[in-house]
Amino acid sequence: MKVGVILVGTELLNGGMLDTNSLYIAEELNKHGLEMKFKITVRDFRDEIYSAIDYCKKNVDLIIISGGLGPTLDDITKEVIAEYVKKPLIVDDDELEELKEKFERAGLKFKTLNVKEVEKPKGAITFKNDVGMAPAVYIDDIVAFPGVPKELYNMLPKFLDWYVKEKKILDDEIYIKDLITYGIAESLLDEAVREFFTEDEIYYEFLVKDYGILIRLQSKMSNKNKVEKIVKKIYNKIGKFIFGEDSDRLEKKVVELLKKLNMNISTAESCTGGMLASKLIDVPGVSDIFYEGVVSYSNETKINRLGVKKETLDKYGAVSEEVAKEMIMGLTTDVALSTTGIAGPDGGSLEKPVGLVYMGIRIRDKVYIEKRVFKGDRSKIREKTVSHTLFTLIKILNEDV
Amino acid sequence: MKVGVILVGTELLNGGMLDTNSLYIAEELNKHGLEMKFKITVRDFRDEIYSAIDYCKKNVDLIIISGGLGPTLDDITKEVIAEYVKKPLIVDDDELEELKEKFERAGLKFKTLNVKEVEKPKGAITFKNDVGMAPAVYIDDIVAFPGVPKELYNMLPKFLDWYVKEKKILDDEIYIKDLITYGIAESLLDEAVREFFTEDEIYYEFLVKDYGILIRLQSKMSNKNKVEKIVKKIYNKIGKFIFGEDSDRLEKKVVELLKKLNMNISTAESCTGGMLASKLIDVPGVSDIFYEGVVSYSNETKINRLGVKKETLDKYGAVSEEVAKEMIMGLTTDVALSTTGIAGPDGGSLEKPVGLVYMGIRIRDKVYIEKRVFKGDRSKIREKTVSHTLFTLIKILNEDV
Repeated sequence: MKVGVILVGTELLNGGMLDTNSLYIAEELNKHGLEMKFKITVRDFRDEIYSAIDYCKKNVDLIIISGGLGPTLDDITKEVIAEYVKKPLIVDDDELEELKEKFERAGLKFKTLNVKEVEKPKGAITFKNDVGMAPAVYIDDIVAFPGVPKELYNMLPKFLDWYVKEKKILDDEIYIKDLITYGIAESLLDEAVREFFTEDEIYYEFLVKDYGILIRLQSKMSNKNKVEKIVKKIYNKIGKFIFGEDSDRLEKKVVELLKKLNMNISTAESCTGGMLASKLIDVPGVSDIFYEGVVSYSNETKINRLGVKKETLDKYGAVSEEVAKEMIMGLTTDVALSTTGIAGPDGGSLEKPVGLVYMGIRIRDKVYIEKRVFKGDRSKIREKTVSHTLFTLIKILNEDV
Repeated sequence: MKVGVILVGTELLNGGMLDTNSLYIAEELNKHGLEMKFKITVRDFRDEIYSAIDYCKKNVDLIIISGGLGPTLDDITKEVIAEYVKKPLIVDDDELEELKEKFERAGLKFKTLNVKEVEKPKGAITFKNDVGMAPAVYIDDIVAFPGVPKELYNMLPKFLDWYVKEKKILDDEIYIKDLITYGIAESLLDEAVREFFTEDEIYYEFLVKDYGILIRLQSKMSNKNKVEKIVKKIYNKIGKFIFGEDSDRLEKKVVELLKKLNMNISTAESCTGGMLASKLIDVPGVSDIFYEGVVSYSNETKINRLGVKKETLDKYGAVSEEVAKEMIMGLTTDVALSTTGIAGPDGGSLEKPVGLVYMGIRIRDKVYIEKRVFKGDRSKIREKTVSHTLFTLIKILNEDV
């Protein structure tokens, strides 16, 4: 069953706002065995919404609209739907009463324009909004949600559960498996896994994320076992480049491993400047294992806070294997990480170019130093340093500890 | 002049990849006085691309397509365009030669399939790709670019410069001015500025970003002076909530101000865990003023690295005004920032709920403590703490120093 999505909102077209709703809609549709065929983004103009609905009606079975359900004058989605299905807009007394109560509970003043939030085409079915004002409205295979992400998240699953039951379309649910790789190029990944995909109905693709490259395997739910067999083959061939599946992330994996091994961790950062600590601290429950971080951006701090020797700094420079090593020796935990590098845009030389980074990892008494020259701008170099440090730590914890 | 954008790529629909190209396209179109009317995202399927082109032809003057220009079999954008304009696909000898030379220079093997990258509908004009293989192709008000962002960035401006000259449409260029506010709700902003927009051709809207809310003023270039007059009025009325314009960011502003005042800075972070230091260190040239950061996540570190008193921790708890104060006193620079709070999801209580944060700011001997209860998940609470600390620092530096 094919779905078309219409996103309504001028701010989605003029560069003012990035659309994240449609990714969420895509994932939810997949879970419910439905497939997004295309999406159209239009401005808050009557003609553009109408013509997008008309285009969808000719090409898909279900139309999902997000945006334009609010109380202001430029919120016209429901008006246009009513016009398209040739029904008048009505207000249900009970729904109006409920809306007024919501305003009262929230301590907000109910104004005449707010009535718009419970308007709907006559004959429409509504889905309750637990986190905002306007309910979702469904009529004739067209459903409209508010554009506010949390309200969409609240009502879309409810609607889809109802819709697939109503239309009896649960038989072709989609199964997706993501393998998250790090440290291997997309072209090499492709060469490595291509041979496993000989069946017609099992697809794969590569998705480049900031935390690694995903191998996404996709098929019907009835092929789940076949997909899992291919997953095993991929692990056998390139398992050392795979650090997790589905919702795994490098920092989550590090925290899990350290908890299991009962080890605590500290960081000493120069070029990444707190980004490494911040990534780890974004994981809930990290306080059991994260002890401290030092952002030793100046040479004085490297000396005073971490005990790096002045002679080492003078002899080898701040961006060097030796300083990376002395930085991790200044930390007292079981595991210690350090970074020192040239993030640019200035400060590079022929011998030490922008992008040169040393990453130190200490696990109890054992010290490992990684040297890399990363490409990209200042932010990218810093992000790559963080990812590479975490991935290397995972590899060492898995193999050596 | 109206433009429709077609984004080609299955990965843009299944939740695998967030589209950033279209925001870039929107900004470039604005600069050239063109207006994006809508965008359609389709999969790499012949029928879907064809039907999207057909829909655009009926609704806009220029069609910009991104994606599907590569060498693999599912790259079919140019085939579909050729079919739509009823021209055969041809290969220009010079362009093929040039492509082969690119491969040689890059040390890559040229394969038969790569010929596809220089195919084009007969009569098409091409635009040179300086950073990749496939050139952009234009015919009959349809132009196609590769989906790779850097290749699009390379060729779109070239194409638009040519196109507006060719079609003589430079007279209605658009002027955009962003005022970046912080610390005031969208509804209050609206009430404050609405009265200034009485002219028909000058629009405004609010864009919610992670670093604040933008007031975007937009009009034709010929109205620039009128827009600037409104900007002045807005500054007079709510200037204390405006921290910058256009490409300004909180951290950039902080670094600029500190350089001007010749002051250096350090950070002591608990709940933000390095995010504050990392934001500042993302600004190029920050090394002149950033001295050090301490991520004092555990109580021991607060005591050992910052000299917070054990009694203070015992008496008031780690999340308290007193501890925020002692944390900044443990830093030696002109300016010192501290954060301590409960980012959740666990650790909250009735008295100290999730979201409670104390932020300390010391400027030489003067100490300021901000207390807030932020809403949102762990990441959001941490991000809000960072933004609020930086904004408060800017305000104090502007007013008190």
